[in-house]
Amino acid sequence: MEPLNVGIFGFGCVGQGFYEILSRRNDPTIKVSKIVVKTPGKKRPVDEELVTLNPKDILDDPSINLVIEVTDDCEAAFEIVSEAMSKGKHIVSANKKMIAEKMDDLVELQEKHGVLMFYESAVAACIPVLLTVGTFYSGEKIKSFSGILNGSSNYILSKIKNDGLSYEAALKEAQDKGFAESDPTMDVGGFDAKFKLLIMLYHVYGIAVKPREVLNIGIDKISKTDIEFAASRGFSIKHLASASINNEVVSAVVSPAFVPKDLEHYSVEYEFNSILLDGEYTGKHFKYGRGAGSLPTGLAVYSDVKLIQSGFKLQETAYQDVNFENSYEIDICLSSSESVESFHSDFTEIYSTSSFENRNYLFGKISSDRLSLLSKEDVSIIVLDELNHILDSETIVTEGGSTI
Amino acid sequence: MEPLNVGIFGFGCVGQGFYEILSRRNDPTIKVSKIVVKTPGKKRPVDEELVTLNPKDILDDPSINLVIEVTDDCEAAFEIVSEAMSKGKHIVSANKKMIAEKMDDLVELQEKHGVLMFYESAVAACIPVLLTVGTFYSGEKIKSFSGILNGSSNYILSKIKNDGLSYEAALKEAQDKGFAESDPTMDVGGFDAKFKLLIMLYHVYGIAVKPREVLNIGIDKISKTDIEFAASRGFSIKHLASASINNEVVSAVVSPAFVPKDLEHYSVEYEFNSILLDGEYTGKHFKYGRGAGSLPTGLAVYSDVKLIQSGFKLQETAYQDVNFENSYEIDICLSSSESVESFHSDFTEIYSTSSFENRNYLFGKISSDRLSLLSKEDVSIIVLDELNHILDSETIVTEGGSTI
Repeated sequence: MEPLNVGIFGFGCVGQGFYEILSRRNDPTIKVSKIVVKTPGKKRPVDEELVTLNPKDILDDPSINLVIEVTDDCEAAFEIVSEAMSKGKHIVSANKKMIAEKMDDLVELQEKHGVLMFYESAVAACIPVLLTVGTFYSGEKIKSFSGILNGSSNYILSKIKNDGLSYEAALKEAQDKGFAESDPTMDVGGFDAKFKLLIMLYHVYGIAVKPREVLNIGIDKISKTDIEFAASRGFSIKHLASASINNEVVSAVVSPAFVPKDLEHYSVEYEFNSILLDGEYTGKHFKYGRGAGSLPTGLAVYSDVKLIQSGFKLQETAYQDVNFENSYEIDICLSSSESVESFHSDFTEIYSTSSFENRNYLFGKISSDRLSLLSKEDVSIIVLDELNHILDSETIVTEGGSTI
Repeated sequence: MEPLNVGIFGFGCVGQGFYEILSRRNDPTIKVSKIVVKTPGKKRPVDEELVTLNPKDILDDPSINLVIEVTDDCEAAFEIVSEAMSKGKHIVSANKKMIAEKMDDLVELQEKHGVLMFYESAVAACIPVLLTVGTFYSGEKIKSFSGILNGSSNYILSKIKNDGLSYEAALKEAQDKGFAESDPTMDVGGFDAKFKLLIMLYHVYGIAVKPREVLNIGIDKISKTDIEFAASRGFSIKHLASASINNEVVSAVVSPAFVPKDLEHYSVEYEFNSILLDGEYTGKHFKYGRGAGSLPTGLAVYSDVKLIQSGFKLQETAYQDVNFENSYEIDICLSSSESVESFHSDFTEIYSTSSFENRNYLFGKISSDRLSLLSKEDVSIIVLDELNHILDSETIVTEGGSTI
């Protein structure tokens, strides 16, 4: 085990979580020697001499051999990480946006400078999915996966469904508890979940897909009535990030979805995340754990640091020469307080229409190109048949023998 | 990556599964050069020249640097593994009984000869729990864990509950599908689950506990009426292996248990295994996947082989100086077709008695020393309050406002 001298950029939720885990573990082989922060003079649970405002105190210190980058600034983070790698420093990062946007560059930088970069905390903190995909599943072909990857969105949906809170009150609570990102749009708009999905796409299928290539529909338009409508028929609305591969072509989407009771994601509530993988050889694998919070993310960072210390490398995916396709047909439910008739022409096929309380529902098949055009203040979209076919549209549309 | 030249002992379900995964993965860095079998002349899906009856063909071949031991003979396996290690060969084994019984020796042998031994397939095949405990959870303190670790027992319980089969018919089906061990007593008597629990105890708490030190109650006495009794009150009877730590003292037990709907194990059916971990810092973690079958166990073996090839070592547990205690008090339900009055004196406290169809039920607290004496043809034991307190006895005893 190589002794590690660590510099940390950012000392918010994740950084403090790591520091706390490290202190409790009392590991003499890992020493934190500098922490770069943005705001001077804040009270921090750490020796003040460690704290600096100057990035050079880490980047120009040749004795620091590992950098933990846990800021929430994407552009600055990439510069820090690039410079650190060019100076032979290993990287652990939690910056999902930066990783998703710069995956190609980051892979190249690691090879060029012979350093390692791990980022388990960036995806479903307490589910070590990148580690297991790069070890245990190296002999498996994952046909599809889906995940509740944004703890904040899941917390909000759970609060509305189980505790009857309004959307606004639920969002406020998620922020107060530290589950939400600094900009809530990232969470509730489905961007945060998309970044995580993109990181998984690289590790599962070996493809670096850009954020603009994947459609993300958030939970910000989902009404309490939508959730009650789903619940009255035994479904839960969950915010899922999904991908599947068919004939070496991968598709992916992030959106609210009707989740039936017998699907594993159904009972995943509040800040918990979950991931369901379907393997060609070994079938279903399900994992769940806390996806947010200081110690959960801190534990994932600590794990990455230990893996880098041991010289461990993730194995490559079993997939080769895979393509990505962002045009597909998908079964959805459209919900609006207005008549849904004006949307009929957007659909390839209409299964049924219905109404519940003050809202109108349209079930049908639509092309993904049209789907992205339906964004209106009052319209919410709930996917019926996720790309990996974990949901059975027919059951949802005709649940209980009658059309819903 | 060191190229590996592999010798396999045993070519049953697990061995063939590994061979199949290796063939599909088409990995040029791993070559199987000999397979030792017991029975000559059997038709096997492999080049006949690879097959031999003579262990020396592997043990005395210095070019073979990794041995896969997937027989079901405990004594012979230990001899093979010891000799192979003494000759500098790494080991991958699926032999849970041998590993559980010889843990101390196996740890010593690895150190003495500077070789690695991995055995992920021995515990909950498709849940890489030993890997994650030795990596991701290295910074966490696992307060307790419970698992459905025997696919065969879970298959039988599911078949009786969901498909109305008799115990005998369900056992036969489990055997026909290859989920059951060669001796069904190992499965249905809870021995197989106990071996797996013991292996987990070593990795989670750093203690090598002997099989005789842990009480195992099997599913072989559970009647269809017991299962219906539980179901009528919304519970499922699952066969759980559990352990918990309090003040650095670990306790463990294997037994049937009443599982409520909101406990994660509830919906784990048929040959699936599941593991629920409770971490001091990060709370609940749940994992589930296939625990038996050729490709699931084969995938776990393949993963171990790749980890050894990369020189990877598991991290040590965060626990030190932990003791094991096999004397404790536990809440149970005793079921019998006779009157339960004669058992009253065995209990420290009696909560309630009840009857359902042709059976009588006694709910109470009992010392583990007495528990092991209750074994009678007609008596079944179902635990209410697992050691880790995942089950709430009070709810079970008084479910629905009335005593059950």
